[in-house]
Formats: sequence, C-alpha cells, structure tokens
Amino acid sequence: MKLSQVGERKLTYYVTKKFSIPFDDCAFLDAGEEYLLITTDMVNRKTHFPEGSTFYQMGWYAMAVNISDIAAKGGKPIAYVAAIGMPENLEKENYEEMLEGMEKCTEEYGGKLVGGDTKEADDVTIAITAFGKVRKDEAMPRKGAKPGDAVYVTGSIGRGGAALLEKNLEELLLIKPKIEEGRMLAKSKVVTSCMDLSDGLASSLYQLAKINNVGFIIYEDMLPVAEIAKKHENWLELALYYGGDYELLFTVKEEKGK
Amino acid sequence: MKLSQVGERKLTYYVTKKFSIPFDDCAFLDAGEEYLLITTDMVNRKTHFPEGSTFYQMGWYAMAVNISDIAAKGGKPIAYVAAIGMPENLEKENYEEMLEGMEKCTEEYGGKLVGGDTKEADDVTIAITAFGKVRKDEAMPRKGAKPGDAVYVTGSIGRGGAALLEKNLEELLLIKPKIEEGRMLAKSKVVTSCMDLSDGLASSLYQLAKINNVGFIIYEDMLPVAEIAKKHENWLELALYYGGDYELLFTVKEEKGK
Repeated sequence: MKLSQVGERKLTYYVTKKFSIPFDDCAFLDAGEEYLLITTDMVNRKTHFPEGSTFYQMGWYAMAVNISDIAAKGGKPIAYVAAIGMPENLEKENYEEMLEGMEKCTEEYGGKLVGGDTKEADDVTIAITAFGKVRKDEAMPRKGAKPGDAVYVTGSIGRGGAALLEKNLEELLLIKPKIEEGRMLAKSKVVTSCMDLSDGLASSLYQLAKINNVGFIIYEDMLPVAEIAKKHENWLELALYYGGDYELLFTVKEEKGK
Repeated sequence: MKLSQVGERKLTYYVTKKFSIPFDDCAFLDAGEEYLLITTDMVNRKTHFPEGSTFYQMGWYAMAVNISDIAAKGGKPIAYVAAIGMPENLEKENYEEMLEGMEKCTEEYGGKLVGGDTKEADDVTIAITAFGKVRKDEAMPRKGAKPGDAVYVTGSIGRGGAALLEKNLEELLLIKPKIEEGRMLAKSKVVTSCMDLSDGLASSLYQLAKINNVGFIIYEDMLPVAEIAKKHENWLELALYYGGDYELLFTVKEEKGK
C-alpha cells in the first residue's frame, strides 16, 4: 500500500503506537518542577509554500509552526535547532534571507538557535526542533477533556484559509504563534486540554475527541469566524477545514466554562 | 553566489557566527549538574544513500549519525525526535522498515523516540534531533586542546572509505556510534577536546585546529589505518579524506598523553 493511500493521520497513529508516544503537540520530558517540551516539524518548499513565497517567509514559518506547538502546551520557548536541506544552485542571499526570517521569529517569541545542520538537498527543506519549558502544574496536554467541558478557541478562525484563497502570503506564512495566550491559559489552571489549530478546527476537534474519548457539540452560529473569511462564499469550509490559523483550541472544566 | 560555490563548511561558519553558536557536535544546555546535549542531522536519500541502500539501513544511519555526536561529547543518549519527509508513492512497508532501523538503533544505544513529524516530500528525508546528558565535569567540547597535547583516535580509520569503494552498504550505513568509548573518555577527565570523525580525519583535524588555534603534527606511519582500507591502493586517501568512520578524535593533556 502506498503512503498516499494510508494518509498522514493514520501514519501518525501508526508511529505513535509503535513507539508508545502520547499523541500530543510536544513531548514532555521530566525536568524537576518543570517539563522540558520538545517538538519537531518539517516543511518543504514544494509541499508547504505557494509560488511567490519569499525565503524570509519560509524561515519565519518553519520556526513559527514549532513555536505554536510550544504555545499550545502553555510553554515558554527556550531554544531551537534547525536541520536545513538546500539545493546547491540556490543563491547564498536566499539562504541568508531564510535565516533572517528564522532569527526574527525567535527574537519575537524568545529562545535562541543553539545548533543546526545544513545539507545539500533537491529542494528547500527545513526541520526545526523547538524546546520550551512549562511548570508541571501549568502544562496543558491534549489529554484531559471530560464530558461536560466547554470548548473554546483563541482569536478567530478561517483567516488561514482566506489568506490561501487570496494568495496573501504574508498573512498565510508570517503566522503569529499564541505564546502569550498559551501562557495566560496555563496560569489560569482551568484548561483541561489544549492543542493548536494548525490542522483546522474539524480535524483538531476530531483528534481531541479521539484522544479523550469524548464528543463535541459545535454551534455554527457561535463559531468565531474571521471577518476576512466571511467575505468568501465558502466561509464555513474555510473555518472548519482549511487550517493554517495557528490559534489554540482548548477545553475548560464545566463549572469554570459557564 | 551559489551555495555550491560557498561550500558546506563556510556556510556552517556563517550560520554559527550569525547566531553566536559554538562550533561543536552538540549544543550544551545548562541542566543543573549536567548538560543537556542537543544535536540535529538531516540526511536524504539522493545525497547520502548509494543505490541499493535498504530503508532499514537509512533509518539506522539517520539515527546513528546523531548518536555519534552525543558520543563525541561523552554523553548518554536519552531521547530523540524525528522529522521525516516521504514521497507519497512510497510503499508503507518501506516506511515501516525505516522506522524499524531507527528503533533497533535506539535499542542498541539507549534513549527513546518521544516525538516526530511525517510530511510529504519529493524524496526520503530524515532529520533526527537527539538528546543526551553528561555531567558538566565530564563533558568533552571541541574547544580545549592546548599546544603540546597528544592527539588520538578510537579504533581504526579508512573503513568508511573502503566500504564506500566496495559498495559494502552494511558496513557503510549500519555504523556503530562510540557511546561506550565516549563515556570512558569522559570519565577519565584527561580529554581536552573531542569530536567525531564523520567528516574524515583531515577535515576534522582542520576544524579542531581552527577552533583551538593550534596545529597538529601527524605521522603517516603512526596512523591506525584499518586492514580493510590498506587493501586499496589509495588507502591514505581513504584514511584521511573519505570520512564515514564515526570514530572519535580527541586530544589529551601532554603529561597524560605520553
């Protein structure tokens, strides 16, 4: 069977099962009173970046999608390593521009690039591994939602989808991970589960439901759809299925969520 | 200027300078009495794997080159994350075989895969990030060699080069990181600098020399060249320039090295 027939999600289930890895945005490593959070995401030009994407945008995006996973656990970014594949006929200036995007993103959200690797490859490939920390009593895993909990998202949804349709690459790629919001939620200690919305609301809810053995009731008229998405006829599709919003999806204990 | 004209080493100098990263096999993060060691290496099929390489061998190799960097610092592997790019028309069995190679390698050297990411990509690309730990008073950075120190390698050199010429993929790819040797050297506390020999002796000595502002005198007749390399007419070239040996290169304080 080809991987395309298996699909990305099933493949992920397969791997996490094989290695007994909890299915979460980050790995949690014991570090005394804190967890060391670790996450890795690979992006490559052909699959992730529409034509016209600048190298600065690619560098920022590759970094930011990882930071978003740290945000979803309530963490504070501390360090990064970057494994980079580059075609040998690429201009040095493009490579520098990409590093610039990575650097500006870390300056914005904290943490420092501490290591990396650059290799020749057919196309631009960037695999960032991000490290964060969070107090154990503040950490927000995906697992923990209970029947009766209320479900929320930060900000509004459908912006990523709208940006894709409008070819607004700045909006699509210079994403803003919700580190501050994640920290606030973590400190509140009322969040029972949390993940980022990179895959879109429908897919993310499906994953939370599966992990927590719960279902969700979502009212269409209560969805916080972004104005920019509502301009499109298929706004509901953008809000539910397009992803690329990088907001946080979280649940809150019943009595606190009312 | 194209990246091919800049070359991999100069590019690495550029990045480490831009981000003020010490030029070492691993990053050292403060963790109380220990350092958390972090390293990342990306490999891809087209650049790193000769035709005929099995997926098991690719998985093992991708993992082992990272473990070798932990070994070179005297560390003990504790965890890994894997960012994997796969063509969508790849057979699921091949993907599973690759995971199997990764798993067997971690079982051999310790540490557990705690997270990852699999994305569609043009060709097989594996970026592993490995984590290790080492007591601060045992850690072996690249920087520290002093004039008068003696220089050593573990095992013998030229085996990687011979394996490449002989198309012995098992020898070439199922490499054995020197975790045990690294731990022994670390505990001895007489090592002043250490790195792995993945780039070959000549290149590695050049890097150690540059970092430590020292020179090295190497006697051809004292090189521990592997028997398998000596069978080749260009055995000296294999021992000095081919790389792929994954032994450790280290220096020892003058009085201890005699």
